[in-house]
Amino acid sequence: MATPFHAAVLLILLFISATTSSAYKAQHHVRSSIKAHRFLGKFSQSHNKPSGPNIQQYEYETRYFEQQLDHFSFAKLPSFRQRYLINTKHWAGPSRSGPIFFYCGNEGDIEWFAANTGFVWELAPQFGAMVIFPEHRYYGESMPYGSRDIAYKNASTLSYLTSEQALADFAILITELKRNLSAQASPVVLFGGSYGGMLAAWMRLKYPHIAIGALASSAPILQFEDIVPPETFYDIVSNGFKRESKSCFNTIKESWNAIASKGQENNGLHELTKTFHFCRKLESTNDLSDWLESAYSYLAMTNYPYPTDFLMPLPANPIKELCRRIDSCPDGTSIFQRIFEGVTVYYNYTGTVDCFNIDDDPHGMSGWDWQACTEMVMPFASKNGTSMFPVYEYNYTADEEYCLQAFNVKPRPMWISTEFGGHDFKNALRTFGSNIIFSNGLLDPWSGGSVLEDVSETIVALVTEKGKTSCPL
Amino acid sequence: MATPFHAAVLLILLFISATTSSAYKAQHHVRSSIKAHRFLGKFSQSHNKPSGPNIQQYEYETRYFEQQLDHFSFAKLPSFRQRYLINTKHWAGPSRSGPIFFYCGNEGDIEWFAANTGFVWELAPQFGAMVIFPEHRYYGESMPYGSRDIAYKNASTLSYLTSEQALADFAILITELKRNLSAQASPVVLFGGSYGGMLAAWMRLKYPHIAIGALASSAPILQFEDIVPPETFYDIVSNGFKRESKSCFNTIKESWNAIASKGQENNGLHELTKTFHFCRKLESTNDLSDWLESAYSYLAMTNYPYPTDFLMPLPANPIKELCRRIDSCPDGTSIFQRIFEGVTVYYNYTGTVDCFNIDDDPHGMSGWDWQACTEMVMPFASKNGTSMFPVYEYNYTADEEYCLQAFNVKPRPMWISTEFGGHDFKNALRTFGSNIIFSNGLLDPWSGGSVLEDVSETIVALVTEKGKTSCPL
Repeated sequence: MATPFHAAVLLILLFISATTSSAYKAQHHVRSSIKAHRFLGKFSQSHNKPSGPNIQQYEYETRYFEQQLDHFSFAKLPSFRQRYLINTKHWAGPSRSGPIFFYCGNEGDIEWFAANTGFVWELAPQFGAMVIFPEHRYYGESMPYGSRDIAYKNASTLSYLTSEQALADFAILITELKRNLSAQASPVVLFGGSYGGMLAAWMRLKYPHIAIGALASSAPILQFEDIVPPETFYDIVSNGFKRESKSCFNTIKESWNAIASKGQENNGLHELTKTFHFCRKLESTNDLSDWLESAYSYLAMTNYPYPTDFLMPLPANPIKELCRRIDSCPDGTSIFQRIFEGVTVYYNYTGTVDCFNIDDDPHGMSGWDWQACTEMVMPFASKNGTSMFPVYEYNYTADEEYCLQAFNVKPRPMWISTEFGGHDFKNALRTFGSNIIFSNGLLDPWSGGSVLEDVSETIVALVTEKGKTSCPL
Repeated sequence: MATPFHAAVLLILLFISATTSSAYKAQHHVRSSIKAHRFLGKFSQSHNKPSGPNIQQYEYETRYFEQQLDHFSFAKLPSFRQRYLINTKHWAGPSRSGPIFFYCGNEGDIEWFAANTGFVWELAPQFGAMVIFPEHRYYGESMPYGSRDIAYKNASTLSYLTSEQALADFAILITELKRNLSAQASPVVLFGGSYGGMLAAWMRLKYPHIAIGALASSAPILQFEDIVPPETFYDIVSNGFKRESKSCFNTIKESWNAIASKGQENNGLHELTKTFHFCRKLESTNDLSDWLESAYSYLAMTNYPYPTDFLMPLPANPIKELCRRIDSCPDGTSIFQRIFEGVTVYYNYTGTVDCFNIDDDPHGMSGWDWQACTEMVMPFASKNGTSMFPVYEYNYTADEEYCLQAFNVKPRPMWISTEFGGHDFKNALRTFGSNIIFSNGLLDPWSGGSVLEDVSETIVALVTEKGKTSCPL
């Protein structure tokens, strides 16, 4: 049975990554942070649809709304249909100013977010609230130019995939719906997790006349420029392993050099291919390292105390289980075999996989890749000592090179903090904002980039010290 | 001598109108409100440069800053050079957190606004403040595509002339300047009058992390949709005449039908052309009515108790003088002759004009015309009883038709209130905003669309009951 909490925690999974274009990877081994950005973007892949036995299906009507492609210019562009899901069953109605619960759709199919946001659905009847789940432009069915193929064709067609345009879509949709329903007096409360949480907080800041408050779960709005240290994310992931087992943490930390050295040996790539059961021969140890790093990061984001079968079927406390497998190998087991045993918790918990495909994204570039290459430029680094990952420094030039290659677009790394704030965020909020709840679990690697202390009486942080998810949704 | 007040009040003149394209007017006699919008746009004409003996020249350096043409998309577009004027002479510097006074440039050459905003210049030394006057995109020298001719070529090149883009220009300019000067701790205070005042208030709302407060003078941010009645503007203009002289008000009110009837007579247009001393024969009595309406509206906006020689040389209390001339004509003087005697206060106070050109805009469409046809859709109407102007109802369809004809662009009449608020503005500000002063003189016709009551302890209205200008700048 999906409790609100249970259904909700699944949301954290939207943080999970897509893969870079293998064509690009074959040419370049610069260490771009875009890879890390991609942890936010798993659901920007078009093939992710709600599925699995634990996925709750809530009741709603699917509607469409015609939107301008560019709200901030008057360039002649085709409009597009934005999908939204709506349920008015429990709504107290306009005469009683029944509230509107509005989920800020993230980078993916909105049906998926609706299916995994039990908190909003279960809260709505208590408040006599209408529930609306609008889809984010360029995801799911809300495709400009009529189809994903055209919308994702190139930098020109993708260029209106920005967070400000998405917020303007939301603002116009809310305004029009309220007008149609004569519900001008109905307060709008925003919800969102991860990127959707960032949107919820930003929407409350930018459109205070439209929404009276926001619950922003696990929203790393400070993960830009140097606002938080770039090591934050991987340090928190690493800490999740270290607290389970120091030796597990050390094994992982030592594995990177071992893998790289093995790759230099004659037949080394072949041996690694066999040990890790890949379907095709490894082309580079970088690919293996990326595959492992992804698994560890995903696990830190989905380290729940109960089994889930969301993107991957996982046991309860999967990091504990991974470390148990690594640590319990008999003496003399090679480090590669230990690492493999551990990582199967993520990639093959059900034991049904015969061999692994290292490149699991047949769809090429995702929408989140584009967003990471334009506005969502989040610096990541991995520091010796605190991190179990390969050491690397943040290198903006590598990001820029990656984005020019991948999309022919140049990122604007300082834009988000200019548009939405970030530096001295608390002071700005203290003199201005109100009615935002930032909720975070401190074991969630994204919590480091969120707001963890109360800013004022009406901008509050809900922090769960041992929380493994930031999303009470 | 230009006192701060004296220099400042001149600013009100930026409210003065441009003229519609005569080609358009010849074809259409629908009553479009765009005409009235244009009272905000006089300075969007490229030929307006600071001049006249009373214009103060303040000391500043002229610099340029490279801006994105579209901040909200990643479309491949050429960047452009934004001009800004800067004076750091009295600045207390970064170590002492010297403030930055930032004037939100309006629809015109920024040198003109700098020359006419004594308040900011004279206040700066007292506060140890740096002074910055950035130019609004598409005005003065801040032309996209390198030249006015290309920038104003068509709807496609003009499409990035929007208020949100202008605010983003300001936000990026401030952020970059502060970074370069290591002045992150320096508070930024926004100033602006008329459209610039609207920008100042909106900027404080949208970029609270960038500016700590705003002084918005005579800023009709509520002059959209049905937020204030569409009659407001002309009622205030009319009231300015009625309070001087009831008979003057009535003469003007009666003149419109008299003019229209005369135009129907054989030789009527010829007689009117002679009476009003036009250089070329009138083509329509509508043109004459427009010419008169403009004069009355301008006078209401420049009805100062001292002489000015700004756009037009004017005596002190020009409405009193106009009414004196109308009322003091000997009995038996025709209504046309009375009206002509009156209106010469505006068009020919120095008595040097031999004949009048009815179409005084050789430059075609102005930037403000574009803005009025896209975002700045302000409904105006004139109601029998309270207004001395020809009666007409607001007709959005006429606006839309005008804009499609003139620019091939369709207005977005509900966009501004969606983006910046307006409906239930006070409630939105009460829960969210702070540090905005709305200053208004109640005899200023634009005051009706501004904020005239305190909203909270930190959002205050400074209202001068008999104030003829709203700008303490």
